[in-house]
Amino acid sequence: MDSETKRLVRGFHDWQWDGVTVHPYKEEGAAPFRAITRQTLFTEPELGCELRYFEMAAGGHSSLERHEHMHAVLILRGEGHCLLGNTVRALKQNDLVTILPWLWHQFRATAGAPMGFLCMVNQTRDKPQLPTDAEIAEMRRHTTVSAFLDGAPP
Amino acid sequence: MDSETKRLVRGFHDWQWDGVTVHPYKEEGAAPFRAITRQTLFTEPELGCELRYFEMAAGGHSSLERHEHMHAVLILRGEGHCLLGNTVRALKQNDLVTILPWLWHQFRATAGAPMGFLCMVNQTRDKPQLPTDAEIAEMRRHTTVSAFLDGAPP
Repeated sequence: MDSETKRLVRGFHDWQWDGVTVHPYKEEGAAPFRAITRQTLFTEPELGCELRYFEMAAGGHSSLERHEHMHAVLILRGEGHCLLGNTVRALKQNDLVTILPWLWHQFRATAGAPMGFLCMVNQTRDKPQLPTDAEIAEMRRHTTVSAFLDGAPP
Repeated sequence: MDSETKRLVRGFHDWQWDGVTVHPYKEEGAAPFRAITRQTLFTEPELGCELRYFEMAAGGHSSLERHEHMHAVLILRGEGHCLLGNTVRALKQNDLVTILPWLWHQFRATAGAPMGFLCMVNQTRDKPQLPTDAEIAEMRRHTTVSAFLDGAPP
């Protein structure tokens, strides 16, 4: 087997893939997040999109953010919850989540175990916006959202 | 919960998803294939790419084809084999496969059980080419390829 053919099939072992680097989720301090890593599975320029795998340890979460670009998400491992606007939704393995433009969103591994998801996204995309204190206060008027942000979803 | 938020999370149940239609793989007679279905999970125009789920029953296979566009594949269910050019590779759950432009390729559920995979692809793409009899004869000069095409990979 030649080296190119080897590169074309990348094996999976314990939530890592051959030749794929496990990165911290974002630059530390750039946004509030916890216990989450990122692996970019496909980023070939010909595709225009990327496929990334994000994994949160138990209790971990992504940053609460919004942006113009869309996310197409499939839960690959475990279960948890996500915030979509003012709504909190339970998620289980293989569920699909569509993150529409400018919708506030956050993922949380709420089940006492890791949760991992695939995310398909455009290679060219805008930078996420973080909520202001006033925007967070507005979100917290919804009881379920407030509980979610405190790590205790319904 | 409003209907839009419901649409944004689509539940998974026994290898089907809420609101996603299970299609035959291709138009019957258009290419040689067997016991395979297609579900399009994401196809929003803003993304430029699609994410599809293909599932073969035990012994099923995709068509043997090549094209200019790339495929980015993740095995979501089961195990099996794929042909990449003149090489046959074993695949297990969550393995990644990159289908480069113009590489002959085929997937087969060789493990006596279904195999399903996610495939990320450009929404705008060229039509697959099927091999001529001469091209198949050339491929069959490789013993492992010939066994694969007969449904008996190494």
